Amino acid sequence: MKLTILGCHSATPRTNTNPTSQVLEIKNHMFLIDCGEGTQVELRRNKVKFSRIKRVFISHLHGDHYFGLIGLVSTFQLLTRETELHIYGPKGIKDIILLQLKLSESWTSYSLVFHELTSKKSELIFEDDKVEVYTIPLKHRVYTNGFLFKEKENERKLDINAVLNANINVAYYRKLKQGADVENEDGVLIDNALVTKDPLPPKSYAFCSDTVYNEDIIPIIKNATVLYHESTFLDKNEDLCKRTKHSTARHAAIIAKKSNVENLILGHFSTRYNGYEEFENEAKEEFNNVLLAKDGRSFEF
Amino acid sequence: MKLTILGCHSATPRTNTNPTSQVLEIKNHMFLIDCGEGTQVELRRNKVKFSRIKRVFISHLHGDHYFGLIGLVSTFQLLTRETELHIYGPKGIKDIILLQLKLSESWTSYSLVFHELTSKKSELIFEDDKVEVYTIPLKHRVYTNGFLFKEKENERKLDINAVLNANINVAYYRKLKQGADVENEDGVLIDNALVTKDPLPPKSYAFCSDTVYNEDIIPIIKNATVLYHESTFLDKNEDLCKRTKHSTARHAAIIAKKSNVENLILGHFSTRYNGYEEFENEAKEEFNNVLLAKDGRSFEF
Repeated sequence: MKLTILGCHSATPRTNTNPTSQVLEIKNHMFLIDCGEGTQVELRRNKVKFSRIKRVFISHLHGDHYFGLIGLVSTFQLLTRETELHIYGPKGIKDIILLQLKLSESWTSYSLVFHELTSKKSELIFEDDKVEVYTIPLKHRVYTNGFLFKEKENERKLDINAVLNANINVAYYRKLKQGADVENEDGVLIDNALVTKDPLPPKSYAFCSDTVYNEDIIPIIKNATVLYHESTFLDKNEDLCKRTKHSTARHAAIIAKKSNVENLILGHFSTRYNGYEEFENEAKEEFNNVLLAKDGRSFEF
Repeated sequence: MKLTILGCHSATPRTNTNPTSQVLEIKNHMFLIDCGEGTQVELRRNKVKFSRIKRVFISHLHGDHYFGLIGLVSTFQLLTRETELHIYGPKGIKDIILLQLKLSESWTSYSLVFHELTSKKSELIFEDDKVEVYTIPLKHRVYTNGFLFKEKENERKLDINAVLNANINVAYYRKLKQGADVENEDGVLIDNALVTKDPLPPKSYAFCSDTVYNEDIIPIIKNATVLYHESTFLDKNEDLCKRTKHSTARHAAIIAKKSNVENLILGHFSTRYNGYEEFENEAKEEFNNVLLAKDGRSFEF
């Protein structure tokens, strides 16, 4: 599982800070999460192949999280893309994109599929044989979702020597990987645990931005491999959180601790601060495994 | 009169090429012309004070000419701007901006005044005591206008020695500057030409992008100080002009010559070419004073 941060700053883009956007590679998927202005250029800078992006998840309709989407949609069109593009985001996103396409008298060469979100409860919004994606309802000034990307339970691994010794027909290997006990060539029932090994534990990534401190998300993101949680402010500006519905680094870390996640990535930094060390320091007072997002930084888990 | 090119490339933004946007300083105005994605960052990079931008002119609703506008409008809001902002552009631009403001549940702290354009004839769209702005109807795939920015005739300059010798009361100086003959203290009518000098000739800037070769614009831009004319293609790709409704460098130069402008700036280059020298060479076969636009380049006239 690889996460590439294209932008991790709040509010307005500047020459050296990009608004929110990231790419998650998980089980051969390449999910784009949020798409602030300039995302298409950052995708190029980070050498992400446009054609691999098939699903885009938009947390909310504040500009720093989606103003780059129409540009990306248009560029895909200019490049005569054929692969369909799925867009998951709050109700309204479809109108915004279609109005602009209509007024430019253009249409896309590929199919554009909108999945507009309105539920205030966590829901499964994408699933295939390898991965599930759930919404994480967040509390912000407008309707906002985080997203939980979960690998499905991996198949058990065959202990090939044990399998051969047990005299099991190759036709049953698939069943073994799925955890079933099977009969061998001599008609004896073989205990699955004797001929297979535990699979790698499934990984998961929880993206939570933007949100005020909200313990309601804990049951949803519980035990995640990685939590990206916004930390717009430091303790000294905690008074701004209530009005703006943002969090501090400490808030993010408390959520990480209470959710028992393995790693916490901090991001969505306000540009009012000069460095990022303080974000890390404050969070580490609450939680150990703290990482800092940075435009262009990749993480592998 | 100073022109700063923020971006001069066609179609999709890349790490090293910006879509169309430019800033024209003329008689204390700072006009923003087109606003492709990333314009707000380029304004910062070129140290243009946001507060000085009061009027934005959008040529047409293709993304490479306006996708940066909503970001700029939002950033002005975040910076708690109070000065009103006037936006001139094709019908539809208001819906695009207002829909996005509505869905983000935000409104601007400043007044946002839309001047939607629909006429297919050149019209005066802005005027004050120093400057006039006219549309230049262009032929492109969608409704498109160029813009002609014209200084008004400057006042005549007093020849102060001659004025004093002629014994003219200071109360008449304003009238003299306006070109009138006035009576002196002795009741004698003084010929204006004897006590004033010709003013500097007024300057003008014609922005024409995007457009196919179109001689209809010649009477409008006649004798302009500077013409910026798109030159998406070179001769060798002239066959693409008809379908895409774009011009070659040679087309731009022929329009410049027939319009008797003083200077031609070429821009809106297709990113299919590696260098820009060929654009200059082709244009110079038709017209002498050819300049090349470049992202971040400024011109003074």
